[in-house]
Amino acid sequence: MSQKKKIVIIGGVAAGPKVGSKISRLCPDAEIILIEKGTFLSYAGCGLPYYISGVVEDQKELMCTAIGAVRDPIFFHEVKNVKVFNKMEVISVNAKLKKIFVKDYETLEEKEISYDTLVLATGARPVIPPVEGIKLKNVFTLQTIEDAEGIKAMLDDGGAKDVVIIGGGLIGVEVTEALAERGARVTIIERLPQILPMLDKELAVHVVRHMEAKGVKIKTQTTVQAIEGSEEVSAVMTDKGRIACDFVISAVGVRPNTVLAKESGLKVGKTGGITVNEQMQTSDPNIFAVGDCVESIDLLTEKPCFVPLGSTANKQGRVAANNICGRHDSFPGVLGSTVCKVFDFNVGRTGLGEAQAKEEGFDVVSLLSPAPDKAHFYPGAKLIFIKLIADRQSRRLLGFQAIGPGAVDKRIDVAATAITAKMTVDQIANLDLCYAPPYSPAMDNILTAANIARNKIDGMYESLTPDEVYEKIIKGEDIVLLDVRSPEEYNEAKIKDSILVPLGQLRRRVDELPKDKEIITFCKISLRGYEAALILKSAGFSNVKVMDGGILMWPFEKIFPKVTKTVS
Amino acid sequence: MSQKKKIVIIGGVAAGPKVGSKISRLCPDAEIILIEKGTFLSYAGCGLPYYISGVVEDQKELMCTAIGAVRDPIFFHEVKNVKVFNKMEVISVNAKLKKIFVKDYETLEEKEISYDTLVLATGARPVIPPVEGIKLKNVFTLQTIEDAEGIKAMLDDGGAKDVVIIGGGLIGVEVTEALAERGARVTIIERLPQILPMLDKELAVHVVRHMEAKGVKIKTQTTVQAIEGSEEVSAVMTDKGRIACDFVISAVGVRPNTVLAKESGLKVGKTGGITVNEQMQTSDPNIFAVGDCVESIDLLTEKPCFVPLGSTANKQGRVAANNICGRHDSFPGVLGSTVCKVFDFNVGRTGLGEAQAKEEGFDVVSLLSPAPDKAHFYPGAKLIFIKLIADRQSRRLLGFQAIGPGAVDKRIDVAATAITAKMTVDQIANLDLCYAPPYSPAMDNILTAANIARNKIDGMYESLTPDEVYEKIIKGEDIVLLDVRSPEEYNEAKIKDSILVPLGQLRRRVDELPKDKEIITFCKISLRGYEAALILKSAGFSNVKVMDGGILMWPFEKIFPKVTKTVS
Repeated sequence: MSQKKKIVIIGGVAAGPKVGSKISRLCPDAEIILIEKGTFLSYAGCGLPYYISGVVEDQKELMCTAIGAVRDPIFFHEVKNVKVFNKMEVISVNAKLKKIFVKDYETLEEKEISYDTLVLATGARPVIPPVEGIKLKNVFTLQTIEDAEGIKAMLDDGGAKDVVIIGGGLIGVEVTEALAERGARVTIIERLPQILPMLDKELAVHVVRHMEAKGVKIKTQTTVQAIEGSEEVSAVMTDKGRIACDFVISAVGVRPNTVLAKESGLKVGKTGGITVNEQMQTSDPNIFAVGDCVESIDLLTEKPCFVPLGSTANKQGRVAANNICGRHDSFPGVLGSTVCKVFDFNVGRTGLGEAQAKEEGFDVVSLLSPAPDKAHFYPGAKLIFIKLIADRQSRRLLGFQAIGPGAVDKRIDVAATAITAKMTVDQIANLDLCYAPPYSPAMDNILTAANIARNKIDGMYESLTPDEVYEKIIKGEDIVLLDVRSPEEYNEAKIKDSILVPLGQLRRRVDELPKDKEIITFCKISLRGYEAALILKSAGFSNVKVMDGGILMWPFEKIFPKVTKTVS
Repeated sequence: MSQKKKIVIIGGVAAGPKVGSKISRLCPDAEIILIEKGTFLSYAGCGLPYYISGVVEDQKELMCTAIGAVRDPIFFHEVKNVKVFNKMEVISVNAKLKKIFVKDYETLEEKEISYDTLVLATGARPVIPPVEGIKLKNVFTLQTIEDAEGIKAMLDDGGAKDVVIIGGGLIGVEVTEALAERGARVTIIERLPQILPMLDKELAVHVVRHMEAKGVKIKTQTTVQAIEGSEEVSAVMTDKGRIACDFVISAVGVRPNTVLAKESGLKVGKTGGITVNEQMQTSDPNIFAVGDCVESIDLLTEKPCFVPLGSTANKQGRVAANNICGRHDSFPGVLGSTVCKVFDFNVGRTGLGEAQAKEEGFDVVSLLSPAPDKAHFYPGAKLIFIKLIADRQSRRLLGFQAIGPGAVDKRIDVAATAITAKMTVDQIANLDLCYAPPYSPAMDNILTAANIARNKIDGMYESLTPDEVYEKIIKGEDIVLLDVRSPEEYNEAKIKDSILVPLGQLRRRVDELPKDKEIITFCKISLRGYEAALILKSAGFSNVKVMDGGILMWPFEKIFPKVTKTVS
């Protein structure tokens, strides 16, 4: 490329500054201009919940490099050789003449800037639900530092606050913890039957239980009808009643900001994001686009998807910069890998959920596997609940979700790497992961889950999810719920109408069980439940199933005989 | 297979019980006999250091299942349908007649047991160095629960103890922390120039500094000449002097226990381990072998290697059981993935070290990359020092090592998965790992390291390790050590004779630097050092190198101007 190339970047939050910095390294003599509408540059949007909670104390920390340099226009110019204009908006793009028209909000001047290559890093915008009262004072979204300051000001203004969050997605849940840590009483209103749609319902229900235990109220299948108040918000009216509150956070999702892209005639995909090729080039070869304004390719379905994340923006920025500077580079796509902290739970996922995998036509095998994240004898071992989704035909891993107080992120990252490499559950089961008691069980949780998947695919046993078992109970089906734990465990907590035959006694007591009924075996995590099913099968029982995940993952009512005894 | 098959397993610690349990699930009607020479069954040998330190309080915890059932012979019989004979030794194997001859240490009876399939899980034995005094009282190895009890008894017997550990390998280092936590003063004696041979020296040196800061004395290139004492040990005599001590732990390594295998005429490999195929079958098709007594295949070199680990033993046990029961299964091999806790450091590695990769003929590119393990603004972010080893030709990841207080194990497991999948550094750089501030930087440490590798492979810059730079300084070479950090950072700690030009001033101050000398740039982690090298290169400087890992990974003397000032 010519050394005098002029590159103009629109958007200064995450992907834009990345592109600029990288280009300045690759083409030190290029003229690089970055235009940002807002005041703040290159800040960590994903850090906003932690700024609200006070975990991150100073706004500046979100705008600093790792060594504490504030990334302001002077920093970008001196260190990165990038000319930055903030508080300046791009009014239009003339792709034919390779020019943009801008308005400077400080001087109110309008001017024209030419480019050789244009980079759109215009990000995403919060969806504003079309609800009466949405413009009232103290109804916030959570995207900018100004949003976070507004919410902090509310919390700082004396006394515990009642807050309604509209939307139980990732942003809504992340900010819930921040608010609760500041003493607020939070109610989440979600239109769908479940919060955290990134998770399958068997795991989401446990996250809900955990949040409820922390005092959060969660109202699913509830629709907001109006936000009430004269000037300031005073309540949220739903189809299931009115909820009084001091302020509201609207977190119903974000949409790619493609106003300029559309006006410039660039191709925009069905997901709403700008269409780019693997080089991050739009339908105009002189215009690249990166970050939350573009759609990505799902590595598993090979279909476009919209998963706005700071990690993806960074990678795309690097790829775009390389290609702009004549170094071929490709961004292959995403798996929707996500992690978030929800009080004492870590919550993560990658790949396809069960429903999505079925929609895509896979022959789905799924399983639940709870286990401690370290050698069980090592103090501080914490539980992880895993759901693994695989394809029966190819035996490939399709999806992996995990929640719990244990080290969830490690297993998600291994699963994401394995899915990217198109690994089968057989290959995963033999991965040489590192082991020592302070770090993992001798068979890591993900290897154990892969082995369960192999057993299921190979038809070693049949299983039911806790949901499916619960449904049978509700319907009054004539089943035997066979708990094979120890009497001590049984006395701590049991499922109603379950019967106990400890695994060690099962071989000699098989005759006590009816051969004509469906028997559902389980234990704490259903490893012994699985062994019990095998023993019954070899003793001639034909209708035996294992309840996935055992009593640990049973989210419904349990009976606590010991407690009852003490009370009565 | 026939339902009456008789399977005899020799060895009851890790792999043996795994094989037995798994066979009993797959073939419920098989007769399964397990023979163990010692008293204890199925215990977590890797937990012994934590039993010594008191982190694991009760010996029984090491022998329990996750739900607290002690794995004794009754447990195995009732729950697993495995007949267990402990305190019984196998005297010989007659592979032709498919019989073993055993001696019962309780009844002193000798008898013959026939088998259809024999499984050797005879483990490994500590190497006993041929040193005078090695048999003195209070000279321990660390392999069995009895060993751990002996060491605990010494520590419990009043006052802080002086302990000499012979051997600075994994076991020696793991037990060091345990002893130090019990108040002991530990000296490690290592024959080689470095402890922890699993690590490359650039990382090992930082582990040594950390251990020394915790009061551990480490004497490398030191040979034990004799262990002194009349009945009990009193000192260890080395080629560099005498070290008085209360007890000694000999931890110079383990060797596969192949006495029976050799006597039975089974093939044993050059590493000393029993040769097995991917089905874990020995050279006799009726005899399988698993765990620490066999050699594995290194997935990268495809050569046999001996890496005894509990995690590997478990996987091999499953594979052997599957094949014994007629389900085809394969154990592909290992990467030498290892992790251990060394005080506040986590230490891990997988794949090939740099020297080994070079020996194998790879065109090696390596790099050092230090960075926090979480978003830098998130409190509790901790450092990780990474060394990455890749192949210039294929661009494949060959090895990955990491140390530091941060979450090392996560990155090792991702690297192990990527190496298994034969991923290139380009593929790794675009992995969709999960990101949120409490879990990782937006660009995870392993992705950043992969990007540095890409830059190096693509010839974006040349680099030197801290060792190489130090050598130039010692030799008095006429170099310019260019520190491009901020004045504040420079004043906290700097390298002797380095000069400071903060990165932001470099463009306008390039004329201050000599074009005819070798310039070595660096910063805290050498990202700014890299940018500085690019600026100098584009300003016409031809002899510019970046010091890998920056001042953070500089293990040699530093000058602390501020401190000096205060003192003088």
